[in-house]
Amino acid sequence: MNKEALVKSLQEIAGKEHVVFAEEDLVCYAFNARSRRMSTPPVAAVSPATAREVSQILALANEHGVPVMVQGRGSCLADNLTIERPGSLLLSMNRFLKLEIDPDTLTAVVGPGVITHDIKKAAERHGLFYPPDPASFTYCTIGGNVATDAGGLQCVKYGTTKQYVAGLEIVLPDGRIIRTGGKCIKDVAGYNLTQLFVGSEGTLGVVTEIILKLIPLPEGKKAMLVLFDNLENAARAISRIMISGVTPSVMEYMDEVIIDAVEDVAHLGFPSHAQAMLLIEVDGALSTLASQVEIVSDVCNRLGAIEIRVANSSKETENVWMARRICMQALTRKAKGRFSGDPAAPIDKLADCVLKVKDLGLKHSIITACYGHAGDGNMHPCFLFNNDAEKERARQASGEFYEFVVSIGGTVSAEHGIGHEKPHYMHLQFGDAQMDIMKGIKRLIDPMGIMNPGCLFDEARHE
Amino acid sequence: MNKEALVKSLQEIAGKEHVVFAEEDLVCYAFNARSRRMSTPPVAAVSPATAREVSQILALANEHGVPVMVQGRGSCLADNLTIERPGSLLLSMNRFLKLEIDPDTLTAVVGPGVITHDIKKAAERHGLFYPPDPASFTYCTIGGNVATDAGGLQCVKYGTTKQYVAGLEIVLPDGRIIRTGGKCIKDVAGYNLTQLFVGSEGTLGVVTEIILKLIPLPEGKKAMLVLFDNLENAARAISRIMISGVTPSVMEYMDEVIIDAVEDVAHLGFPSHAQAMLLIEVDGALSTLASQVEIVSDVCNRLGAIEIRVANSSKETENVWMARRICMQALTRKAKGRFSGDPAAPIDKLADCVLKVKDLGLKHSIITACYGHAGDGNMHPCFLFNNDAEKERARQASGEFYEFVVSIGGTVSAEHGIGHEKPHYMHLQFGDAQMDIMKGIKRLIDPMGIMNPGCLFDEARHE
Repeated sequence: MNKEALVKSLQEIAGKEHVVFAEEDLVCYAFNARSRRMSTPPVAAVSPATAREVSQILALANEHGVPVMVQGRGSCLADNLTIERPGSLLLSMNRFLKLEIDPDTLTAVVGPGVITHDIKKAAERHGLFYPPDPASFTYCTIGGNVATDAGGLQCVKYGTTKQYVAGLEIVLPDGRIIRTGGKCIKDVAGYNLTQLFVGSEGTLGVVTEIILKLIPLPEGKKAMLVLFDNLENAARAISRIMISGVTPSVMEYMDEVIIDAVEDVAHLGFPSHAQAMLLIEVDGALSTLASQVEIVSDVCNRLGAIEIRVANSSKETENVWMARRICMQALTRKAKGRFSGDPAAPIDKLADCVLKVKDLGLKHSIITACYGHAGDGNMHPCFLFNNDAEKERARQASGEFYEFVVSIGGTVSAEHGIGHEKPHYMHLQFGDAQMDIMKGIKRLIDPMGIMNPGCLFDEARHE
Repeated sequence: MNKEALVKSLQEIAGKEHVVFAEEDLVCYAFNARSRRMSTPPVAAVSPATAREVSQILALANEHGVPVMVQGRGSCLADNLTIERPGSLLLSMNRFLKLEIDPDTLTAVVGPGVITHDIKKAAERHGLFYPPDPASFTYCTIGGNVATDAGGLQCVKYGTTKQYVAGLEIVLPDGRIIRTGGKCIKDVAGYNLTQLFVGSEGTLGVVTEIILKLIPLPEGKKAMLVLFDNLENAARAISRIMISGVTPSVMEYMDEVIIDAVEDVAHLGFPSHAQAMLLIEVDGALSTLASQVEIVSDVCNRLGAIEIRVANSSKETENVWMARRICMQALTRKAKGRFSGDPAAPIDKLADCVLKVKDLGLKHSIITACYGHAGDGNMHPCFLFNNDAEKERARQASGEFYEFVVSIGGTVSAEHGIGHEKPHYMHLQFGDAQMDIMKGIKRLIDPMGIMNPGCLFDEARHE
């Protein structure tokens, strides 16, 4: 199908003003947060407003074998949306803005283009809580969160996006529309297609509506910052806290390279011998907060914490989270570039992981750093470089770390997804039989292979 | 493959003492809790002990097209295991008894043959909690719970089995063994095959090991019993409590027919004008229990509750739960038989549902009753009969209720599964496109159709 015919058909379906096809205009869509550019520009971008329009667009693309990439706000961190094939069509979901809170069923019905933060705010107005909070929640869309099963700081206690997806409206690649799940709290009829589509990264169809579960808003919360002069003890504290009976709503970890970078920028008065920092939040009924803080403090003190700061004002709370918010940016002062990622390990293996990052730094003569959502075992190990030789060694170290993580029962992706970034790591985690089933499901639902080709599956290796 | 050859092969794989093939011995396996008999006896029953043995058995069955039914303790309530095909092989999982609690990762690694209650007890010894509690939890197996995504009383707060399944070892119908998920709290790599297998009712493969998530054991709990003289107000109280900020760990509902039946048997002193009863439990930190009870009581009082009993001793707590435990048996005094089921509706539609059950009773001149896990919208509507004419009308009423539930956004199965009992209801909830995907997945993973044939899919209607 030539570009002119495609554009004409798209204009008929979605209206002229919702189809972009001039090369200079397409630049606005040629972006994602990881690569900051697309390798190949799309041939056109269309912004439909209804499932019916999406259905017509997909039926057209399917008939003519046009690859379709679905975009929210492009904040993905694993090149989940990267156009590899010439002639690809970009489908922007930013006109799907339904946002209805249904307090009587503790659910929200939302369009995929709604910003996650807006859902949280709307729920709060009813005393309700939508917990998932990826770092990008003020600008990412719920559609992208569903596509990647996005996590965040609070999933140590509240779980990832998938736990809150109760139902989906999905347009299949052939244009048929299905509705999975619904507003029922319990539903076991048939195979769980809702959870098959959550986290499928745009490879199986287009989500056009999402039913989310909401929970009662916790009455209060309390933040604390704990410093250790010993890396291993900090890592041990994490798993000890998790089994103490208190489940923190946030438990973030940073090593001394990050602490140093943050201190350079924010001057928070961290002691110079601090080797590791935990940022912890507990939440729940007001009557429980003091005892939760006490239990967490006890565990940290027993493991030799050198300083515990409990935030007793909004200013002090702000300081705790500032350290977390600026750490990625602060780290850019330490090196020109880095290989990072989002692996996770069982929480009892965290100490091994932070030590392994250190070891790999020594082995390959590069600077390393490590931070992450420690309470759920999800780290962001950073292998830093300032020149091409270091870059090659950092790449090698990063690869070795992924192999290590899988060897101790971990996963190659705990929150960003596989995207176009990590298909070559899938074989570390999955054997042929499991890959066969995943690829079989892909072929079953998307036989023409039009949905986000190149994502998830390493075509050179696996097809 | 003739019986003699099959038995010989099975004996070579699992050992002579683990293969049963005499007709009189097979009677012991010919049972499930719903039908209390199998329509066709299996040709043999084998009790393997390892995934490798299961792999060899399935490879053999797959090669020769022998249907395979997987059995735990036969406590299923939707004929999930009913042998329809002559020459079927029964695979008993009762030798898979691994039970390892790993407190450092808050997980348990268990064999499918372990009794659910034993997992709960083992977790409690480490201060940990495995919440799912189907009514049969003292005698059902975790393998069956995973196969049906079993719910229970506490899933109003804690969710169903699927929320606790972090990983599976599965033998595919062709004998290949895969491991999905693991001990990581977060894992988004690839399609979510773990959740595809949870609830698949033995139609896709055999689960040989399960990794379960555990959570900290709540510090305390408090039971209460609330009586209403008005059905609608009781149903309204349920959804009001759910949005009050307190999420009860249990919230069960019973109508006046059940109250009367229970009172006849147990003499608990219920007022004769009671039309509905709620059995409620709150749990959590000890410091929060009194205020949780107060909030729940306030909601009930505002809706005109005629009596609220808060259990202040273990004897009083026991009395609260006795009412729930005996209600099914007590109901047998009201009628010779009944059509029941496990539909669910969004919780704001509960009042409509209990009134609909009443209406259908009047319309078809039969006695009805209704009880269930009201906090999560999951009811057990009962259409009673004492003779063949009433039975036919009760069947009709039950079918009309299922249609009604789906029409208001409900599901035909919230906890028992579809089994061989309800495949003819699948089309009420799912359109052709969704059925096509489910059947496509079944064909992809089990191309010979050997796993639990006749379960989930109505072959006459859908194949």
